[in-house]
Amino acid sequence: MPLSSCYLFQGISQSQIERIAAISREQQYQMGQWLFQEGQEARHLYQVQEGSVELVIKVEEAIEIPMAVIRPDNGCLGVGALVEPYRYSLSARCLEDSTLVAVSKTRLDELMHDDFELHCAIMTNLAKKLLDRLKETRQEVKIHFMNLVRSITF
Amino acid sequence: MPLSSCYLFQGISQSQIERIAAISREQQYQMGQWLFQEGQEARHLYQVQEGSVELVIKVEEAIEIPMAVIRPDNGCLGVGALVEPYRYSLSARCLEDSTLVAVSKTRLDELMHDDFELHCAIMTNLAKKLLDRLKETRQEVKIHFMNLVRSITF
Repeated sequence: MPLSSCYLFQGISQSQIERIAAISREQQYQMGQWLFQEGQEARHLYQVQEGSVELVIKVEEAIEIPMAVIRPDNGCLGVGALVEPYRYSLSARCLEDSTLVAVSKTRLDELMHDDFELHCAIMTNLAKKLLDRLKETRQEVKIHFMNLVRSITF
Repeated sequence: MPLSSCYLFQGISQSQIERIAAISREQQYQMGQWLFQEGQEARHLYQVQEGSVELVIKVEEAIEIPMAVIRPDNGCLGVGALVEPYRYSLSARCLEDSTLVAVSKTRLDELMHDDFELHCAIMTNLAKKLLDRLKETRQEVKIHFMNLVRSITF
């Protein structure tokens, strides 16, 4: 999967993609390996090339809420690397042996600093995705709320 | 409250603020009046100058989930005007007689199209806010989830 398949890089030029590819490196991960934990400093943005990665909220030691599974066809992860306070907002673990491309936060910052058009495109794509995720998460709250209302009513 | 107090316009210059002020107009709303409904085309971004506006999810005719109250000191509303598909993602109603400043989506698009730096700053501020809201909403899901686990366990 090329980097251009990541929603963050939609609408950016081939030369911009090449500059991002130049600050990226491919990494191998094993099934069950953690990529990052919620709250950790976000130093990389990741794209799944092969395999799959699960995003979870850890509730207690043995309890996790699954939030999403990222595969080569549906996006990237670690967007905390793009937004203050630059920390991961979920924990990520490989569901199988996986190949990921890691983009350095520091070097992507430098690229965006030198190219307003690139910065703009990435932030606009990110805002759209975050608003979509917010709507989905609100739907979950709505379902829980309805269940609560029903359990009180009946 | 000046427009510059809105989180979206943090870090932008005085002349950029003045250009946004020039495409804005003050409007009076009465207590109980709806500003917009979830799903409607988002034509304006609003800032509360005086009074307060409640953001809600409508669940059924008589059931609403309160999501936030926007006052002069804590932000703006209607950010669906900044992100595709340009629809409001919540419903908004005045909690009291209120004075709002409405910024035209079409004209703000024109300003951002001509000024990448402005576009960049607004989108970066928006992404930060949306990630914060997403984290808060996930916390709610976490609480509901924990309650569910407890109700099954005990």
